[in-house]
Amino acid sequence: MSNAELPRTDELRVKRIPEKQVFDRDALNALLDEAIVGHVAVLRGDQPVVLPVGIGRDGDTLLIHGSTGSGIFREMADGRPLSVAVTLLDGLVYARSAFESSIHYRSAVIMGSAAVVEGDEKLEALAILTNHMMPGRWEEVRETTKKELAATMVLRVPLERVSVKVSDAGPDEFEDDGDDRSIWAGVLPLRIVAGEPYASEMTPEGTPVSPSVIAQTQRLS
Amino acid sequence: MSNAELPRTDELRVKRIPEKQVFDRDALNALLDEAIVGHVAVLRGDQPVVLPVGIGRDGDTLLIHGSTGSGIFREMADGRPLSVAVTLLDGLVYARSAFESSIHYRSAVIMGSAAVVEGDEKLEALAILTNHMMPGRWEEVRETTKKELAATMVLRVPLERVSVKVSDAGPDEFEDDGDDRSIWAGVLPLRIVAGEPYASEMTPEGTPVSPSVIAQTQRLS
Repeated sequence: MSNAELPRTDELRVKRIPEKQVFDRDALNALLDEAIVGHVAVLRGDQPVVLPVGIGRDGDTLLIHGSTGSGIFREMADGRPLSVAVTLLDGLVYARSAFESSIHYRSAVIMGSAAVVEGDEKLEALAILTNHMMPGRWEEVRETTKKELAATMVLRVPLERVSVKVSDAGPDEFEDDGDDRSIWAGVLPLRIVAGEPYASEMTPEGTPVSPSVIAQTQRLS
Repeated sequence: MSNAELPRTDELRVKRIPEKQVFDRDALNALLDEAIVGHVAVLRGDQPVVLPVGIGRDGDTLLIHGSTGSGIFREMADGRPLSVAVTLLDGLVYARSAFESSIHYRSAVIMGSAAVVEGDEKLEALAILTNHMMPGRWEEVRETTKKELAATMVLRVPLERVSVKVSDAGPDEFEDDGDDRSIWAGVLPLRIVAGEPYASEMTPEGTPVSPSVIAQTQRLS
């Protein structure tokens, strides 16, 4: 089962600025749990194709879901090699040179192939995916119908071949590299926040905003 | 030069929920200009690899840059097929069912191959890339050295094979599908905001925060 340390193989080794690589599975889990979307890449003929996908995490596996009618989901379902990147943008790093200007981020790059989730596991996986994006929502919505379940594809990718990179240091700066110290250098933190929720057309006036929506608004405040 | 309409080819056609596809080049440009990072996918052997990259836009081409020592940048520089996705997350769509729950987003998927930017164009491209991420910063920082220029690779990908998708409608809902109308449905808008900028270790106390940082803080407020 779960190992607290992520693997150290040549394939997964970060070559550029290797000190930013982290091997802590908790850091991977925290990053995946915070992110709402990932980007999945597969090969279509000899053309790589990358698309955004909603993600979830079930222990040491990544869950992604889409329509059974989606081309890329059918392609992934055949077990071909794929890669998923999950990236959180944490800030802009203002250095005194363009060269050292950079970004604060946390990113995970996963390589592997997908297995289709079926049977009893599928409904559980959808609960995880729904509550990943909208914590607590699964318990508020009506039950998923058989037709809806059949129209949804859920894929599971093992979190084994994973490389995690965290960039959170201040800008590289030097006493003697010609930087003009009168130029301000530093970090502008970034985060995702929620605005005011607004109701759909068919929501009767006066319907209280769901607890999960209020909780998400507070989480992202 | 620029055509106001994006191409309509079978490769670029959105198969899932085709009404979300838009063919307006202005929508593409606005999305690319707002985004800070993209995700690029290339093939390494028979393994697709997807990584986050900083982006910029020069007219009808996408610019990306990285280290000349980066494996993926060397791979892209040989002209192999690649794909870049740029995604902005605009909100969470709370439907009355898990099935109809979704995300408000704008995304562009670009396919093509990269050309290395060299010579006089390279410095101009770096100015565009820097000011894309941090508007106005290029004019504040010290000049880029020849050594830094040599250590940076800039790639240009034509914005020709591009597919743009915009999801901005309310949740799908029906009078008669068994939805419990007492459940609140609606949208929780999301956006990226800046926190308080903080200075680097070597920035002398009292150094005024740069105008570009103040402007970015206000833009992302």
